[in-house]
Parts: sequence; C-alpha cells; structure tokens
Amino acid sequence: MPLTPLDSVLFGGLFGDAEALALFCDEAEIAAMVEFERALARVQGAQGIIPGEAAAVIDRTLASVTVSPKEIARETASAGVPVPGLVACLRRIAGAKGADFVHFGATSQDVVDSSLMLRLKALLALFDGRLATVIARLVELAETHRATPMAARTRGQMATPISFGLRMAGNARDLALELRNLRRISAEGLPLQLGGASGDLAAMGVTGDRQRELTARLAAELGLSPSAPWMTGRRALLDAATLLTGIGNALGKLGADAMISTRTEIGEVMLAEAGGSSTMPQKKNAVKAEAIVALARLNAGLLSAFAATGIQVEERDGIGWMGEWLTLPQMAVATGAALCRAEELVNGLEPDIARMRASIEASNGLMLAEAASFALMAHMSRADAQALVKKAAEEVRQSGHHLFDEIGKLSKAPIDWDGLRGKADAVDAAAKMTDGLLEQVAELLL
Amino acid sequence: MPLTPLDSVLFGGLFGDAEALALFCDEAEIAAMVEFERALARVQGAQGIIPGEAAAVIDRTLASVTVSPKEIARETASAGVPVPGLVACLRRIAGAKGADFVHFGATSQDVVDSSLMLRLKALLALFDGRLATVIARLVELAETHRATPMAARTRGQMATPISFGLRMAGNARDLALELRNLRRISAEGLPLQLGGASGDLAAMGVTGDRQRELTARLAAELGLSPSAPWMTGRRALLDAATLLTGIGNALGKLGADAMISTRTEIGEVMLAEAGGSSTMPQKKNAVKAEAIVALARLNAGLLSAFAATGIQVEERDGIGWMGEWLTLPQMAVATGAALCRAEELVNGLEPDIARMRASIEASNGLMLAEAASFALMAHMSRADAQALVKKAAEEVRQSGHHLFDEIGKLSKAPIDWDGLRGKADAVDAAAKMTDGLLEQVAELLL
Amino acid sequence: MPLTPLDSVLFGGLFGDAEALALFCDEAEIAAMVEFERALARVQGAQGIIPGEAAAVIDRTLASVTVSPKEIARETASAGVPVPGLVACLRRIAGAKGADFVHFGATSQDVVDSSLMLRLKALLALFDGRLATVIARLVELAETHRATPMAARTRGQMATPISFGLRMAGNARDLALELRNLRRISAEGLPLQLGGASGDLAAMGVTGDRQRELTARLAAELGLSPSAPWMTGRRALLDAATLLTGIGNALGKLGADAMISTRTEIGEVMLAEAGGSSTMPQKKNAVKAEAIVALARLNAGLLSAFAATGIQVEERDGIGWMGEWLTLPQMAVATGAALCRAEELVNGLEPDIARMRASIEASNGLMLAEAASFALMAHMSRADAQALVKKAAEEVRQSGHHLFDEIGKLSKAPIDWDGLRGKADAVDAAAKMTDGLLEQVAELLL
Amino acid sequence: MPLTPLDSVLFGGLFGDAEALALFCDEAEIAAMVEFERALARVQGAQGIIPGEAAAVIDRTLASVTVSPKEIARETASAGVPVPGLVACLRRIAGAKGADFVHFGATSQDVVDSSLMLRLKALLALFDGRLATVIARLVELAETHRATPMAARTRGQMATPISFGLRMAGNARDLALELRNLRRISAEGLPLQLGGASGDLAAMGVTGDRQRELTARLAAELGLSPSAPWMTGRRALLDAATLLTGIGNALGKLGADAMISTRTEIGEVMLAEAGGSSTMPQKKNAVKAEAIVALARLNAGLLSAFAATGIQVEERDGIGWMGEWLTLPQMAVATGAALCRAEELVNGLEPDIARMRASIEASNGLMLAEAASFALMAHMSRADAQALVKKAAEEVRQSGHHLFDEIGKLSKAPIDWDGLRGKADAVDAAAKMTDGLLEQVAELLL
Repeated sequence: MPLTPLDSVLFGGLFGDAEALALFCDEAEIAAMVEFERALARVQGAQGIIPGEAAAVIDRTLASVTVSPKEIARETASAGVPVPGLVACLRRIAGAKGADFVHFGATSQDVVDSSLMLRLKALLALFDGRLATVIARLVELAETHRATPMAARTRGQMATPISFGLRMAGNARDLALELRNLRRISAEGLPLQLGGASGDLAAMGVTGDRQRELTARLAAELGLSPSAPWMTGRRALLDAATLLTGIGNALGKLGADAMISTRTEIGEVMLAEAGGSSTMPQKKNAVKAEAIVALARLNAGLLSAFAATGIQVEERDGIGWMGEWLTLPQMAVATGAALCRAEELVNGLEPDIARMRASIEASNGLMLAEAASFALMAHMSRADAQALVKKAAEEVRQSGHHLFDEIGKLSKAPIDWDGLRGKADAVDAAAKMTDGLLEQVAELLL
Repeated sequence: MPLTPLDSVLFGGLFGDAEALALFCDEAEIAAMVEFERALARVQGAQGIIPGEAAAVIDRTLASVTVSPKEIARETASAGVPVPGLVACLRRIAGAKGADFVHFGATSQDVVDSSLMLRLKALLALFDGRLATVIARLVELAETHRATPMAARTRGQMATPISFGLRMAGNARDLALELRNLRRISAEGLPLQLGGASGDLAAMGVTGDRQRELTARLAAELGLSPSAPWMTGRRALLDAATLLTGIGNALGKLGADAMISTRTEIGEVMLAEAGGSSTMPQKKNAVKAEAIVALARLNAGLLSAFAATGIQVEERDGIGWMGEWLTLPQMAVATGAALCRAEELVNGLEPDIARMRASIEASNGLMLAEAASFALMAHMSRADAQALVKKAAEEVRQSGHHLFDEIGKLSKAPIDWDGLRGKADAVDAAAKMTDGLLEQVAELLL
Repeated sequence: MPLTPLDSVLFGGLFGDAEALALFCDEAEIAAMVEFERALARVQGAQGIIPGEAAAVIDRTLASVTVSPKEIARETASAGVPVPGLVACLRRIAGAKGADFVHFGATSQDVVDSSLMLRLKALLALFDGRLATVIARLVELAETHRATPMAARTRGQMATPISFGLRMAGNARDLALELRNLRRISAEGLPLQLGGASGDLAAMGVTGDRQRELTARLAAELGLSPSAPWMTGRRALLDAATLLTGIGNALGKLGADAMISTRTEIGEVMLAEAGGSSTMPQKKNAVKAEAIVALARLNAGLLSAFAATGIQVEERDGIGWMGEWLTLPQMAVATGAALCRAEELVNGLEPDIARMRASIEASNGLMLAEAASFALMAHMSRADAQALVKKAAEEVRQSGHHLFDEIGKLSKAPIDWDGLRGKADAVDAAAKMTDGLLEQVAELLL
Repeated sequence: MPLTPLDSVLFGGLFGDAEALALFCDEAEIAAMVEFERALARVQGAQGIIPGEAAAVIDRTLASVTVSPKEIARETASAGVPVPGLVACLRRIAGAKGADFVHFGATSQDVVDSSLMLRLKALLALFDGRLATVIARLVELAETHRATPMAARTRGQMATPISFGLRMAGNARDLALELRNLRRISAEGLPLQLGGASGDLAAMGVTGDRQRELTARLAAELGLSPSAPWMTGRRALLDAATLLTGIGNALGKLGADAMISTRTEIGEVMLAEAGGSSTMPQKKNAVKAEAIVALARLNAGLLSAFAATGIQVEERDGIGWMGEWLTLPQMAVATGAALCRAEELVNGLEPDIARMRASIEASNGLMLAEAASFALMAHMSRADAQALVKKAAEEVRQSGHHLFDEIGKLSKAPIDWDGLRGKADAVDAAAKMTDGLLEQVAELLL
C-alpha cells in the first residue's frame, strides 16, 4: 500500500517516476544487496580469503536468487536492518559448501551502504539523460527566441525589455550546471562501503596492502569507487542530496516561471497540457508546473532532515543511518518526478509572441525608463535625469500617455525618441547575452 | 511499489503502521471522497438544492462503489487533482437520474480537503487508544518504582539521586499532555471544507442562513465541524501536524532514554527485544528505540516543509496544496509507527535495579555533592561550602575515595555523614514528585 | 555587532522589530533572570525556606541591579549557561546577609526557562495589539468592499467573480484565528520552571503540599502559570513556536497576495509605499510584501530546527536546550517584524476598483463559464453543458469574442444571457460570504 | 542590540566567532559594496565605458569613505535593498565630477551579491586555517594512539576492540574531506555578479567581447571568478551552504563523541575545560561539545530554509534573495563558532587509557564474540559457531564469567583462547586502518 504521492498509483502521473521508484523499492534494495554479497565472495575467493570453491558456489547459487521482502521482514524488524535475515536466507540457498563464507567478515552496514551506492549510481545515469533532454529543448527555445522581445520582470515588476530566449538560456545554464555537477560525482565515483564490524575490517583477516587490494577489487566489480570505511562520515551522501536539491531548484525555476507566465492576465506562455477543473470549464491550470515547484520544495524541505542525519556518533550510528533511509529515497524519486514533469512541460511550451509584445506596449514606455534616463544624461546630471524620468513615470500612471510624451512635457532635451522607442523591439543586449549563455551551456556539457 | 520505509514491506515491522497506512493509501482517499459526495447529495436533496430523487439515486448507487486508483490515474495527472476523474466516474455510475447532481456546486478542494479531514479524524481516534496504552504502562512503572534509586543525568553527567519512577512519570506526563492536546482537537472537531469554485459557494445557489444550514448538515453527516471555507487558511492542518510532531517528540524521549540506558556501560534498563548483528553474536541493539528517535526526527524535519505550504496565495493555491499531500500523510504514518514501536518498547522494558544502585555507588558520593554543600552551609558560607565540596570532588576523582571522606579531610564541621549517605537510598523528594506528576497525568486524562 | 537582518541597523526598517528585539537581547535576559531570583527569595522567605531577613536583603539589593552581559560572559562560556556567573555576581551584590540564600535550591534551568517565559509573555501581549490592528484594517477593507467585484484566482488562473472584500475577510479570519490562539496560550498561562538540580526540587527542602505552595506562589509573583518541572518536556515552547509560525503564515498570505496584485500586469491593488530601483526610475517594488513573505518562510523554516530540539534525553538535555536559544528568539523577532511590516502594508493598501473590473471584462466572459454551464443544465445534461461551454471557451481564446456569443453559436437554448452577464457585477454570494466571515472574526475576538 | 547567541555578548564565548562576525556585520557589507563600486568605476574607466577622469575621482574619493549603517537605513527600508541609499551617498561624496558615473549601468543585485562573494571568500580563507589546525591535532592524537585499545561502539553497544587512534583518524579524515571541498570552491573561485537591471547588461553599453572583457577585468580586480549573470541561479551559494553544513556535521561528530565519552559512567576521554553547575559542585559538563553539536544542528536545520530560497522566479526574485540574507550569514558564523569551539575542545582532549582498557575488560570478553565465532568456524559450521557464541554470551550476562569460560562449557573445540584474549590488546587491524586513514588525510591536504 503506497503512502506518499511519490509512490501512489493515483498520483503517479503527477508525482511519480516509475524508473526511479524501481531503484528504491524493497526488491531493488534486496537485489543490490545480493549483488554485493556475490561480488564480495568472488573477490575474497580470488584473494584466498575464503576458499575458491566456496566463492564459486556462492556466486553461482545466488546468481538467480530472488528473496522476497516479506520473507525477511520479521527478521528486519527484530535486527533493525535487513542484512541478518537476508544473509541467513542466502546461506540456506548457498548450501553446505557456501554457507559459511557468505558475508564473510562483512557487517550489515557494508551491505546496506554499498547497495545504496549501486542504486544512486544508476539514478545518476538515468538523470543524466533526462537533464540533457530538458536542456536541449531549452537551448532550442533560446536559440529560436534569442531576439524575441519580452518584458523582464524583477521583484514582480516589469523592468526592461529583454528576450524570451534570454530567460530560456538562463534556465538552460542553471540546469547545465547541475548536469556538470552530476557528471563530476559520477566521474569521481560513488564510494564502496567496506569496514566490517567496527570499521577496521578486523574479521576479514587481511590488513595493509592486501586489504587495500580487496577494497579496490570489490569496488571495481561493483562499479563503485574504492574508499576507506565511511561508517559515520556521510559526506558522499550529502553531496548526492545537495545535487538532488540543486536539480529540483533549477527545475523549480521552470515551474515557477510557467506558473506566472500562464496566468490569465499574462498568458505569454502556452502549455500543450493543462488541467481542467471539476466545476469551471474554462480553467487551464498549469498543474505540471505546480507539481514541479511542489516537488522542488519537498526536496529543499527534506534536505535539512537529511543533513541532520549526518551528525553521527561513535563507530556506527543507528539513528542517523535510519534517518537516511527515511529521507534520501524520497528525494531521489521526487527529483525524478520533477524531471519527468519538466520534460513534458518544456516539450509542450511555446511563447505567445504577440502577447509578449502587447505587454511591453501596455507599459506605455515605462520599461524604457532606464534607457530614457541614460539618454537624458547627455543633457543633465544623472540625478536630475533620474528624478525627471521618475516624475514623468508618475504622470504616465495617471494619464495613460507614453513615457516619452510625458518626458517631452518636462524637458526639451534634443533626444531621438523614436530611436529609443525601437529599443523595445531590438533587444540586442539580451540576444548577445543569450548567445553567451548558450556558449557556456555547450562548454558545461562538453 | 512502496518507496519509503514507512510503507515498505521489508521495513514494515520497524517503520510501518498498517492501521495508519490504511487511512492514507489511495483507496482510503477515494473511499472518503465518495463518502463526501454521497453526503453532499443527501443534504442537498433534503434542502431542495437538488431534486430529492436524484439525491436518493446518488446515495444508493454510490453506496457500494469502488473506484480503483488506476482507473482515474490518467485524469488525475492531467487535472492535477483526482476529483474531475472521480466525479466523471461517479456520474457514470449514478446513471441518467443522478449524474447531473453529483458534486453539485462543489469544487475539487471541497472533496479533497474534507476527505483528508475524515481520515485525520479516524487517525486521532486510533492514536488516542495507543497513547493511553503507552501512558498506562509508564504510569505502572512510575508507581512501582517511585522510590527506586537511580542516578539523574543532566547534560550527560550524573547529577543527584532520583528515582526511576520519576523519569517514567515525567515521560508519562509529557505523553499525557499530547493526549490532552489530541482530545482537544477531536473535541473542537475537524473542519468541513465547503467553498465551491472560489470560496463563496456561488454555484450552490444558497446564501446566508440556508448556506449555513447546508454546511452544518453536511458537517453533521460526516462527523466534521461546520466551518466557513478555509481554502487558503490551513491552520487546522498546522495544528494536526504540530500534534504529530509533539507526539513524536514525547515518544522520542522514550527512545533516546532507552538508547542511553541500555548502553553496554550503563545497562540500567533491560529490553525484552533487541536486535542482533550480522557478525557480532553478543550485540543487543536497541533497534526499536533507534527507530522511535529516527521517526521523531523525521516528523520534526518534515514540520518545516509542511509549515511552509501554509504560506498561500489568492483564492486557492495549487503549489501549497500539493505540498501538504507530499508531507502530512507521512507524518501521520511516522507518528503511528513510533507509537507502535513505543508500545512494544515500554511493554518489554524493565529497570535493572541492581545496576542503578551500582552506578550511584560507583560515583563515590559525588552525586551527593549538592546535598553535602547544603549540609556544610550550617557551618560556613555557601560560597565556602561549594568551594570546599568542589575541591573534595577533585580529590575523589584522583583518589577514588568517597566524597565524604575527602570532605572530612578538609573540614571538621560536625555533620551526620551517615544520615546524608542514606539520601542516595531514600529518594524521598523524587518519590513525592513522582506522585505529583502522576496526579497531573490523571487530571490530564480525565 | 549584529549578524542577521533581524537585528541589523542597516536592515532594521525591513526585518527589524525594536520592541520584540528589546525582549530578547542579552540585557533583557539578564533582567528577567534577576527578577526570577528576587521573586524566588521573596517567596522562600515568606514560606520560611530561607530566613526572612535574607530574603528582604536579596529583594532590596537586587532591585536596581544591572549586570552587564560582558561582566559574566567569560563564566557563561565556561559553564555553558549564564546562571553560575550571574549568581556569583548577585551574591556579591546581596552581601554577607543575602549571599547564601540567593538562588537557593534552584538550578540554572529554573532561571533560564522562567526568564524565557517572562519574555514570551510580554511578547504575546505586544503581538496581541498588533494583530488586532491589522485585523481591524482588513475588516474595514472587507466591509467597504464586500461587493466590489474582483476576479477570484485559483491555482493561478482567473476563476469566477468574487469581491475584494471576500479576500480581505478571509485574510482577516485567518489572522483572527491566530489572535484567538495567542489569547488561549496567554489565558492558560506560560509555565514557571522550578525543578532544582534533577527535577525533584530535593535541595529546596520542601515536598508535597509545601512544594506545591512554593511553586504556586512563585508563579503568581512572576505572572506565570504553576507547573510541575518540565526540564525535558518542552511542549509549551512548541506551542509558542507554532503560534509564531501560524502568525507568520497568515501574514505571509497578505504579503503574497500583495506581491501578485501589484504586479505591473495586474495592478489591482495600490500600495502607499513601494521600493525604488537603483537603476530603473519606474519601478515600484512591493518590498514590504516581499519582506513579510521572506520572514514567514524563515519562521516556517526554523520550525523544524526548533522542533527537533524537543527530542530530549534523560533529566536535562544541554544540546536540545541550546538549540532552543539558537532558534526561538529569532522566530519571535521575525514574527514581530512581519507584524510591523503588515501593519504598514495594510494601512497603505487600497484596491484599484477600475482595474479589477477591467480584469473581469478582459476575460470575455470566461469567468462566467461555471455560471453558464449551470444555466444550460436546464436544457441538457450537465456533462453536455460542461462540454459545450468548454468548446465555446476554446473559441473565445481564438476569436476574442464573448463567451456567451460563442455559446450562442453552439446552442439555441433560451437563456437570459444579459441577466447572467450581470452576475459579474452583482457578486451577491461573495458579499454574503464576506458578511459571514466578518461575523466569525467578531466571534473569535470576543 | 544582538539577537541570537551567535552575535550575543553574553553567549559570545560559546556560540560566537568574532572574526566571522566581522565579515557579516552591517559595516562589512557596506565596505564590500563600496569596494565593488570603486572597482567597477576603475574598470569602466579603463575600458572607456565611463570617462577616465570620473573613474579616477570615484576611486579616489571613495577610497577612505565610511558610510554608517544608520545613515542609509531609512532608504534601505524603503527600497528593500541598501544600494539606492548607498549609491546616493557615494554620489554625494564623489562630487560633481564623479557622481554621474558611480554605479554606472549596474543594478542593486550586482553590488549585493558581489559583496557577499567577497566576504564568503574571506570566510573560506579563515576557515581553511582553522580546519587545518583541528585536523593537525586529531592527526597527532591518531598517531599517538594508533594502537591504544578502546571499545568500538556501534549502535550504542560495545562492538569489538579497536584503537582510540582509529576514531581520531576517522574524524580527521572527515574534516580533511571538508577542507578539500573548501579548497576546491576557493580554487574554482566565487563568482562575480554583474548583470545590470535585467541580466543582459543593456545599460552598460557594451556587448559581446567587450562585455566579457569588462566582466573578466572586474572579477580580477575583486579576486572573484568571472561569470555570466546568475541573478536567479544560486547554485554557488548552495555549494557554500552545503560546505558549511558539511563542516558543521564533521565537527558535530567530535562534539557528539566527546559528549558520550565524557559521561560519568564512561569517562574514557578527559577535557581540559568543562562547565560547572550553579548547584552541583561535582559537575563537569562538556559544554563546548554540546555547543558544537547544537551549532551543527542549527546549520543542518537552516540548510532547508536556505535551499528553498533557491527556487526563484523570472529575472530577479526579491523574496528568495531576502531569504538568503536571513539564513546564510548565520550559517557562516555558526560554522565559525563551531570551529573555534572544536579547536578548544581537541586541544584540551586526552584519552584515559586506563578507563578504556577497563571498559574492554568489564565486557567479560563479549567484545571478542565475533573473534570467537570465527575461531570456532574451524571446528563447526558458521551458523553453529554463531549460535554457540550467542548462547554463551547470554550466560555471561547472567553469570558474570568470561565469555571464553562459558564457551568452554558448551564446546570442547581445541582453540587457543589465551591467544584470542590477546586480541583485545593487540588491535592490529585498527592500527593499520589508522595508518591508512592518515595517509588519506595527507593526500587530501596536499
């Protein structure tokens, strides 16, 4: 019985991500733990830490095993971790020849942490492709609309004319930064956990170079990065959680922009899909955009709960460890769901160029106030120019006339007002900045 | 496919609560929404807002209906809320005579919010019984051990001798406060949501007294409390979330105390059940205690994410609303799981009286330092008394002798040291305070 | 040197609240601690727990004392709490006749917690008046504009016509709920802390009825509520923190609404004060509204950090205790600052009735879609009516014609379209709901 | 008037960090903003964007200026940002020849964000040295005690014998990882903000290569990293906040370990400084350790509040921006204070080797249970060996005899028990792992 919208059937199309969920469900955790035990046996066999024959038996017998969550649930509850129950199960399956050497010298945390890393690695690979897809669409929109005039909004107010492409390029750049971050983490590798009961691998029977060799080989088998034990040093997980939050935040910008831009009064962006109402036939709610923002906020909100689990104690900390289980998987799926929704959102997103232009015109030139004040500076001090434009802007709000007409009433400075008026159309600086951002995106994704 | 340990099969015995989960799964949400639609039709029929015959048809045809989450998942994704899909389904089921009057004049939020309240109400009833059970056991322990000497620990250091009963009574009192809070919320009633499209019930076709009557009757049908619309005023939910956090925190104290008290070096408390290790046969990990603390921290951690959803905007706020769905149900189940584990914990919890006494004795009288300084005050100033005892305490740490012996070397003040020594055994003040706390518990639960 | 915008001189006008700050600065904490020690001595003198003469000396000598934070900073750092240093200071001041009986039988936490409660009590009184002022202005706006048509916005989209007064009344109601909550907490009283070293008041030398009398008298002296010790049971503080968050959230709605309503494209609300830009003369940033939302989010964000401090351990928990100091005072001042800004905001807030009407008209009747579908139900099934209106609405978006004209092309149903058109002006249901909410406000503030 | 313990005089020695505070007080912010305006003028002068003479005047006149926070507080409140007030002030100071070209083409956010980056850069340099100092002391302890036997504790229970050095080395490694992270951020550079009103630098009058040159030169002048505008793309700040949390968490481990290890019942670690009680002369509270943990929790708790500010909207987002101001500076000072306390803590920290050994002995061989079960495997299956040892361990708890004696009653397997007994003393694996961790530390700090 699923509990949260993240794993709900009912809400799956809004808040779900079947692929990410498949990495964090019970079955995936068990499968990854079995993978660890097999690889451990293989490597220990090769190194002569356990008999080669036993290793072969373990590797073979556990190859196709599926242990159901139900089978080991009772023992998980009693031990506080699934490993003792799972290992007992695996020993039965490995039979007389293998049983003694399953999980040899390892501890529960080796299995659970390494299993998590295996799944985080797969998650990063999954998200890499999705991020690239969303970025590609934003780049496409940015290129197409590098010079499509749109009113910039700063602190909720119309500011100066920029281009729709500039906004898209900025959003693309922020996502490209996250993809670069993701690839860095992948490239450095997710760390294997192998420490034994108390982090010194004492029961493994190997120290020094042989121990380092064991760790290196096992990491290689699993596609993880070799590491000294990090039982209570959870920084790699904090990096992963921050990445998820960062991706969520960058996607959240897409959602928040879409929410505002599709408001009835603004309507500068059109979405292919929008939600209907149970009672109002005209409604076109930007529900995917809402979901993206809600998911980003969830991630940001969970980050503290997760981060606080990193203040651990002594050699192994059960409370902090459990806290990770309760938070990190949902951050993974929330991010995944936000990526899915974002992909759908941007694929169906188009600017309404006419309404963008209309918004600029409806400002009666107020958005050219900065440009006007710079033009007036040729004829008066900057302070005077700004004060004059401010006064004229007040008049515009009352009269509804164009700013330049109101300025004309206050000053006879010989300025090419028509040329300035063209500035709203020729958003040259924005187009050039768009180009610059797109170059940065390309570099980040090299 | 469950995602979090809260709904996992594998971790169900640690972090799960089947009864609470059954209130927050997809099926429960749908069932409560259908219950709302039926009650709405009945009341609207009775008031003549819709034809009585249509009301009867709706009530009857929807009585035994089960709509599966899967059936309406696609429409939920597209609408951003399950109601349009569900209502379309219910209209088909209600047939020609009922269809037009299903969900008459209501909006999605009326259904979703009221459905949530129906389930929160059931949750409170469930938790009432569990809290009472845990409290009863703590009261029993407090009564039995009202005068069983135990070292108080303040800021991690042994302080003065109190009784084990005093600690139990304090914990019982804190839980009794939460049960009182829970009952207050239940008594005031969980609010019905009924506002229509924009919170004025315009499409319902009734205003003023008739509208109030409609609200009152519908609330009565559903066992909720009548309320003006609270589309963006989510305080009732914040109260519920705070209650869940408060319960979690009070249970967290039980867990945190058990974690410390069952440490190998302390061992003053014994637990019937403890977790084994995958490699260390001697381990008795207090895994239920750990789980309770981890769940309490999750609740506290989610409280901000939940609370931030309460900063809403305009008439109805999709992002804030979705944020509630993503956080509140898991707080409910986390609290429920903590209650289950706490019940198991306290039922199997017994003090080890001998080790408690041994701990006090091992302090070589240092825990009587406050008592000694008060006794010395009859013969010198308080400042001198405290300084003298502090010096003696330093000596104890070096010599391993008893504090009173070291004081005796520093002062000849004629004090009944043997009488004072008895203080560690006769924890009279603690016993009396235990009685007082238990009286308070009784009053809170009246 | 102030650190946060909450106590900064530079940002004081945005994020500051001098009155609340004055309750939570070092000096205020010391003053309240001295007040506690004086009251304790008076009551202990009256009960004969300490000599009456000593009590009188303490009360008199400490009456006009001011201990500077600097004076006891070093000892605070070393003890982890200001009390030992302060008490040493006070003993010097009390002289030979008083010294021994200052802080008699009490512990640091008694002083610190009770001092906090004294200041929270003053804070609630301060906020009571401010909330009442903000509510009064919202009520005034609601009454004046109970029938001033405004487009409702749900999930960011125009929904149906309501009144500006309805929004104001809803916001007033949510704040009135918080004021009711605040008054409940005040009426139940903030609890005195008095537990002695380990929560059993052993060193106080009184038990049972005499101990209860001591507690009751001391609480009465300080204007607090008598309570058994709550060293690790911090629920009263969680109630306070939740109240602060609740107030913040309700104010946050005012800020968020103002942010949207004053957007250049919407402009339905005018603010007396708005922020200028360093480069754009036309800008009218709603900076107070922004500050209110930012403060509300801070409060919501701190709530988890605060709540997690409530999972305490053993008899007294230094880490949890310190965590309260680091979070609660800033929540108090953040809420106070939000109240100050909200008062300024609503006092300078006026609706632009003409723009509200223009917004409704610009929707080409789309906001009457729900009303149209209900009217059509007299002539066809509801499903058909909704589908027909949905189709017409699509046409409106293309053609720019009025919804009713488009419906007319699709159906010849004999409907009084002009009468329906009037619905946008005669927002009767909204006006009546406004009245209802204002009645509720009046009841809440009785 | 300071508000939080982070800037309090009273609590400064516990929660304060004068050096970090000096970077985040009002004065420091203003000074960094003036530094930005001067550098901007110099670079614009050099590039001919503004007259060279004006640039020289600005650079010279603003060189020694100090604008007090009070002076521009009123304008800060009204504009929602200190820049318009500050720029007005600076223009007055720059006089007729400079005024027009102060802040030429820049926007408030350029100044505020770049000023923040200047101070974060200084903060990283400050923390680099402190981290190195704490690490050096931990390395020293690890080297000295690489083979000093200590009981490992996992999940609160004694596990197997390790060395005190291993714990120290693990803590050193976790801090070294943070120092490596810090140095990476410093090496990549903190980004300059330069975007103008709407992020396209339109009013600056330069595009393409000349704009890039401007950005590069200004960044070089300020010691920041050149960057395209990041008005709403706040990832660099999230990286900084995560670093602060990461440092806090790694220090939190030191604090949490010290809290447990100095408990009266354990006492395996001695601290040079410890807090006294106001009433209990024997108390030695580990108050610095408590403060470190409380500060780490604050940081983790603020991380969500901070991270949520990163979900921004449109071209510039006032609410998100303000949210950063309200959270990030206190995270900086909290981390700084934790570093100060940690330095004091580890400098005064020594192990009590005798008590460590006593703890191991007191376990009656239970900590050798894993070793015993491995030894028995030569004579029976692993499952039988573990079951036998588990049974013997139960007997130990009842009888108080040594584990090996109890095993001897259950099995006659010829095992060298004395050799095994020596394992508790010869913690070879732990010593080797300590060496490995110290090598890793050395590599991280290269």
